[in-house]
Amino acid sequence: MDSIKNRRTIRKYKAQDIPVDLLNDMLETSFRAATMGNMQLYSVVVTRDPGMKAQLAPAHFNQPMVTSAPVVLTFCADFNRFSKWCRQRKAEPGYDNLLSFMNAMTDALLVTQNFCTIAEDKGLGTCFLGTTIYNPHQIIEILNLPELVIPVATITVGYPDESPAQPDRLPIKGIIHQEKYHDYTPEEIEDIFAYKESLPENRHFVEINHTETLAQIFTDIRYRKADNEAMSDLLKKTLKQQLFDK
Amino acid sequence: MDSIKNRRTIRKYKAQDIPVDLLNDMLETSFRAATMGNMQLYSVVVTRDPGMKAQLAPAHFNQPMVTSAPVVLTFCADFNRFSKWCRQRKAEPGYDNLLSFMNAMTDALLVTQNFCTIAEDKGLGTCFLGTTIYNPHQIIEILNLPELVIPVATITVGYPDESPAQPDRLPIKGIIHQEKYHDYTPEEIEDIFAYKESLPENRHFVEINHTETLAQIFTDIRYRKADNEAMSDLLKKTLKQQLFDK
Repeated sequence: MDSIKNRRTIRKYKAQDIPVDLLNDMLETSFRAATMGNMQLYSVVVTRDPGMKAQLAPAHFNQPMVTSAPVVLTFCADFNRFSKWCRQRKAEPGYDNLLSFMNAMTDALLVTQNFCTIAEDKGLGTCFLGTTIYNPHQIIEILNLPELVIPVATITVGYPDESPAQPDRLPIKGIIHQEKYHDYTPEEIEDIFAYKESLPENRHFVEINHTETLAQIFTDIRYRKADNEAMSDLLKKTLKQQLFDK
Repeated sequence: MDSIKNRRTIRKYKAQDIPVDLLNDMLETSFRAATMGNMQLYSVVVTRDPGMKAQLAPAHFNQPMVTSAPVVLTFCADFNRFSKWCRQRKAEPGYDNLLSFMNAMTDALLVTQNFCTIAEDKGLGTCFLGTTIYNPHQIIEILNLPELVIPVATITVGYPDESPAQPDRLPIKGIIHQEKYHDYTPEEIEDIFAYKESLPENRHFVEINHTETLAQIFTDIRYRKADNEAMSDLLKKTLKQQLFDK
């Protein structure tokens, strides 16, 4: 499991393409992930066409990986295929609700992580784009996703053309709880975040962003309350449209 | 990646315990998964105590793995720790919304799948309990989860005491779409589900359940519309309570 231990996000890729058979093999293996009731509540849209990548890019805030990676994969929560099958078999599906969407989202994300592990083991690099659920309505339109299909993760993948340093992680005692969740005291929070705050790159980050603390970079610049709330409202509208508007 | 290819859900475990160091090592490695802005928006509650397992069991519809596995792991979407840090650093967090919850859920599920891959590679067996989001309110109470912490996945893990057959999967052409989502024609649905419907175990399943079709086992017995909708309402209430009730 060295590839998991040594994993880095790769944002720069060689021009080298990914063979169709290799990609299909990796996807097929990823579909071995656990899935609720063996329903396989996901679909994967493969983007190789430069024109399609250019269309998708704005939905991902024009992060350059979307157009520079040989392959972009959009993993979708999908209750459409299963529901269509039900209807063809005199069975009335009842999966147009938030719970069922979250079941399908879970299925899709387990496959996404599986795919990344497999790809990295084969020497490929991946970048997970969290932007997928920021602008799902745009992606839905571009990829022609029908009702009951919602994009939940996008992966850019290709042969690495960089070898970045591995980012820090919080100490595991800050993440693992024994038997019950023990809520954090102020001292524990100090302790858990001390190493992250001490890193030269993070101190530099604070300096060039002219904030007082590292946390303010997150709350005031990167992931702001007002933006989150506006995007959250948009997400709710999109969920309503894809799930409930009968 | 043979362990991913050959993966089976393991529901029966030997009495053998999992050493603390091994479990911590596996969890630490799993935390290498991609995480939004390196915020690590998850916590893991480790359950080894038989009394705690017995308390958790009803939330998982008394599936026997919960009490018979040496270790039960509850993976939670967690914006509590990060928000507490923000507040201690003169930064006002804005993460009490659906989008932020889905960001944290994503982080948590990538770690969950990573953990399963690592555990299976080490010869352990896992079972993913989708029931976690059916009764999150019960789990929240039992595990003492504070605001902004929501359980999204439960894994039972232990040394395998069975070697079940590998379940079928749909043909990949039914899951992968090139460039755009091509919605399924009735003929394609027939084709995609033909193998699953032809399997002797599934035909037997239909027979003993006295349904006309395999799909009806899902819609009328296993995942019924009325149940899904009731649990979906409960999930919404729980989300509101953990995220929005200020």
